[in-house]
Amino acid sequence: MNEDAWIRRIEARLPVYRRSASRKGGLVLGIGDDAAIYRPAPGEDLIFTTDMMHEERHFRRGYPPDAVGWKALCRSLSDIAAMGAQPRFALLSLAVAPWVKPAWIDGFYDGFLALATRYKVALAGGDLSRAAHTSIDVMVCGSVPAGTALRRGTAYAGDLLYVSGELGGAVLGLRSERSRSPKTLAARERHLRPVPRVALGMALRRRGIASAAMDLSDGLSSDLARLARASGLAAKLCRPLPVFPGASEADALHGGDDYELLFAAPASARIPARLAGQRLTRVGELIDGEPGHLSLEGETLVPAGWDPFVR
Amino acid sequence: MNEDAWIRRIEARLPVYRRSASRKGGLVLGIGDDAAIYRPAPGEDLIFTTDMMHEERHFRRGYPPDAVGWKALCRSLSDIAAMGAQPRFALLSLAVAPWVKPAWIDGFYDGFLALATRYKVALAGGDLSRAAHTSIDVMVCGSVPAGTALRRGTAYAGDLLYVSGELGGAVLGLRSERSRSPKTLAARERHLRPVPRVALGMALRRRGIASAAMDLSDGLSSDLARLARASGLAAKLCRPLPVFPGASEADALHGGDDYELLFAAPASARIPARLAGQRLTRVGELIDGEPGHLSLEGETLVPAGWDPFVR
Repeated sequence: MNEDAWIRRIEARLPVYRRSASRKGGLVLGIGDDAAIYRPAPGEDLIFTTDMMHEERHFRRGYPPDAVGWKALCRSLSDIAAMGAQPRFALLSLAVAPWVKPAWIDGFYDGFLALATRYKVALAGGDLSRAAHTSIDVMVCGSVPAGTALRRGTAYAGDLLYVSGELGGAVLGLRSERSRSPKTLAARERHLRPVPRVALGMALRRRGIASAAMDLSDGLSSDLARLARASGLAAKLCRPLPVFPGASEADALHGGDDYELLFAAPASARIPARLAGQRLTRVGELIDGEPGHLSLEGETLVPAGWDPFVR
Repeated sequence: MNEDAWIRRIEARLPVYRRSASRKGGLVLGIGDDAAIYRPAPGEDLIFTTDMMHEERHFRRGYPPDAVGWKALCRSLSDIAAMGAQPRFALLSLAVAPWVKPAWIDGFYDGFLALATRYKVALAGGDLSRAAHTSIDVMVCGSVPAGTALRRGTAYAGDLLYVSGELGGAVLGLRSERSRSPKTLAARERHLRPVPRVALGMALRRRGIASAAMDLSDGLSSDLARLARASGLAAKLCRPLPVFPGASEADALHGGDDYELLFAAPASARIPARLAGQRLTRVGELIDGEPGHLSLEGETLVPAGWDPFVR
C-alpha cells in the first residue's frame, strides 16, 4: 500500500460528519489537501498544543496498538483540558518503523479515534511517513470564549492547591507491566489508557473558580514547581496526598503520566468534593517565596518528576 | 541542562514581540504554558498543516544543523503557501538523539528562526524530548480571508497547468551531496535550504487567478496526479518542462523536495511570466478522463515521485 492508499484508508475510517465541509464555521476542510481549515466563531480563543511520543521511550512495540493511539491523543487533549478548553480538532503525524504491520496502524487508529469520538475531536489532517523508529506527534486545537483560558501563571499568594483523582497510578502501572495481578490491573490501565480531564477543565473554566491550572504529565513535584514559578510564588504541600491504591507517596509526588489536573483557587472559593465526576483534593497552598520552591509539611521538596533531559 | 532550562533558553532566543501577549488579537499566549492561544479576527479562515522529518530519512547527522531547522519549517510553510495563506505561527516538536549536542540544537533553532523571521511566523510553542533518533514535527497555522483558500480539488476541465521556478534541483542536490563542484552548488543549496513560495501563494490568492493549487513536495508526477484526482480530472503535460540547470527531465518529473507551486487556471486567465519574483511556466492542461491519469506529450506517465511507503 502506498501513501495515498493509506490516507484514503484512514479517511474512510472517519465519521462522515468529519469529512463534510461547512461554510458556516467549524472544520471547513479536513484530510486530503495541503492543510486543514478551521473557521472560528467571533469571540473565540483557539488553543493549540502538540506532544510527541517515541517507540521504546514512551511506549513499547508489544503494547496494544490501540493503547498507543489512545495515549498519543490523551497527552495533547490533557493540555487542552488544562486550559479549560473544548477540544475541536487534531492533526496527527505518524512515522512507522519497518516492524509496523497494517494491522498495527489499524489498531492505532482504532484507539486514537475511540478517544477522539468520546470528546468530539475531529481528525483534520496530519502526516504519514516511515522512519527507523515509530514516532507520533499529535496537535490538538481547542477553543474557549475569548480571554477565559486557564493559565499557569495567574495564581496569587494564599490560593489553595487542588488535584483531581488519585496520583501515582501510571507509574505503578508502568512498574507492574509484566504483572497479571488483578491488584495492579487498574494501575496498568491507567498507564496504558489514561483519560484526559476534559470535562473537569471545562467545568473549572465555566465556574470561574480556578486562578491557575495545568495538567499533571511529568509528576506533581515538577509540574507544581512550574505552576508556582510561572505565578512567581512558592508552594507548600500537605499530607495526606491522594495516592492511587497500591502506589507510594513518592509515586504520587514524582510519577508522571497521570493526566490529572492541578489547579489553584482563592481560599474563599467553594470547591466541591467532586466536579465533572472527579474527586478534588486540597493538597497545599501557594505562598510568597522563591518562585518555584516547594515544601512538603515544612521540608524542602526537590522536583523529581519526568524530565527527558535528565533521565 | 534539563527540559525547563532548554525551554527558557529557546524562549530567550525569540524576538520580544513574539513573547508579548496581546488582548487585541493575534498570538495571545506563546511558549511556556500548556498550549498556545491564537485569537483570529472575524472573517478569517485559519489553515493548519504539519510535517515530520526523521534522521537518516529526511536529513543526515552531518548536515548543517541550521539547514535542518530551516527545511523543517520550509516543508510546512510550503503547504501554507500552497493554500495562498499568510503564515501566522508555528508549533515545533523536536526529539533529539543522544548524539545531538547543545550546539546542534542552537544551530537548528538558528535556521528555523531565520526562516520564521523572514515570513513573520511566530514560534508559539511545541514539545522538546529525547529519543533514539532525531525527529522533528512542525505545525504551521496560516490565515486567509474566509472562503479564499486555494485548494486542490477545485479545478475544471480545460484549465491550464503552471509551475513556479525550476524543477529537479533538490534531487540533483541530494545526488551531488559530496560534490564540491560550483556547478551543483545551487542544487545543493536547493536541497538543503529550499525557499517556500509564500509570497507567490498569497499573490495567486489575491489575484484570484488560480482555480486550484498545491505545493511540489513529492515530485511533479505524484503531486499533479493528486491535484487531478482531487478535481476528478486527468492531466496532460507538455514539453519543455522548466528543468533546473544540470538536472534531467526525469528529475523534474519525479524529484521531490522542490517546494515550488503547481496551480491550475482557466484558459482565459492572464498569467504573468513572473509573479512575486518567481518565473511561471505553463506545463499542461487538465482534461476530462480517468481521475488522476497523467500523460506527457501523449504517452501515459506513471507517477514516480517520493512515497515513504514505496521506497
